Amino acid sequence: MLGSDIWMCFIFYSTLLILKMYIIAIITGQVRLRKKAFANPEDAERHGGIQFCRTDPYVERCLRSHRNDMENIFPFFFLGAVYSMTGPSSAVARIHFVVFFLGRVFHSVAYLLALKAPTRSFAYVIAQVPCFSMAIQILIHVASFA
Amino acid sequence: MLGSDIWMCFIFYSTLLILKMYIIAIITGQVRLRKKAFANPEDAERHGGIQFCRTDPYVERCLRSHRNDMENIFPFFFLGAVYSMTGPSSAVARIHFVVFFLGRVFHSVAYLLALKAPTRSFAYVIAQVPCFSMAIQILIHVASFA
Amino acid sequence: MLGSDIWMCFIFYSTLLILKMYIIAIITGQVRLRKKAFANPEDAERHGGIQFCRTDPYVERCLRSHRNDMENIFPFFFLGAVYSMTGPSSAVARIHFVVFFLGRVFHSVAYLLALKAPTRSFAYVIAQVPCFSMAIQILIHVASFA
Repeated sequence: MLGSDIWMCFIFYSTLLILKMYIIAIITGQVRLRKKAFANPEDAERHGGIQFCRTDPYVERCLRSHRNDMENIFPFFFLGAVYSMTGPSSAVARIHFVVFFLGRVFHSVAYLLALKAPTRSFAYVIAQVPCFSMAIQILIHVASFA
Repeated sequence: MLGSDIWMCFIFYSTLLILKMYIIAIITGQVRLRKKAFANPEDAERHGGIQFCRTDPYVERCLRSHRNDMENIFPFFFLGAVYSMTGPSSAVARIHFVVFFLGRVFHSVAYLLALKAPTRSFAYVIAQVPCFSMAIQILIHVASFA
Repeated sequence: MLGSDIWMCFIFYSTLLILKMYIIAIITGQVRLRKKAFANPEDAERHGGIQFCRTDPYVERCLRSHRNDMENIFPFFFLGAVYSMTGPSSAVARIHFVVFFLGRVFHSVAYLLALKAPTRSFAYVIAQVPCFSMAIQILIHVASFA
């Protein structure tokens, strides 16, 4: 059922991207502990007192990075799965998935290290190119049946 | 593999909704540039100085609109895909997808144009009706196998 | 098409988790109305005046709970669907899905009732275990084909 190499390639990079997102969640939690900046009073009380229920710029940065992942990686799961079913060439499909994967890893690194602008935006755009490409190809495929 | 017309209809509207979400992301970026309101110091520094690392009410509005899309459109991808596999009538399935699609487009328009309440809430409720309907039908379908 | 019991089990718990997320959205809306704390001026004006366009700690809590669901439940939909296709034993698969489901329901209860730390974190970790397990098994499955 998972036999096609396009499908396997899609699943491989998608699963790695989920693990990447889990790592950002873990980093966020570690930064909250180290900087003593908790979103909930009950967490702050456990770690020294209610005064640690506060925001922190780096925690906010982690949250923005994670949110941007949700905005872009979750749609990729839909687009990549459907695109894989439209019968693309194996090499072209692989390029779509690899470019998206590398773009999103690069985006996270640029975000968490606060690399000089427009590095992060560049990574974002790079990763969006295969997404727009897949969306257009899906619409053309659907239109050819309508 | 993508041959059924119910499946095609689902994929068509889902892909358009992803493009709609991408458009909100693009609008957010444009508003950030025009209003000089950046979330990250590195972006602010590239566009005039650290004082532009600040919030803006319309940027916040775009972010709320995008977040509401994530809360509702991503679950639709799951519900719509599974519902398509439960063997619904083609006409009824199409109504579910079209109502959700129009409701969500209307929601974005109402949000970004700040239309008088309860216009946006009305669009939200309209789009949730087919989602609840699909969720119930899926549970009934699963229960009939258990 | 939906005939395997593993698939049915996955769909059953996933659909319940979507309904759980919808319930959090409904609770958020009810709290906004009861506490008169609206995110948008147009909503505040409809419910008594622009002064009610303000934040509220419990609304913020609901939003964090909902966001944490998005960060964790949406990836589960991908992991669970793909894992179901890798040919796991029915009993083991069921344990993965049930543990995740119970962990996430427990997480929402702990969040909304502000239970003493680390109750909520404990629920989060419990629910992440089957997710990491599925991600690893998917990667092993894919690697065995490569």
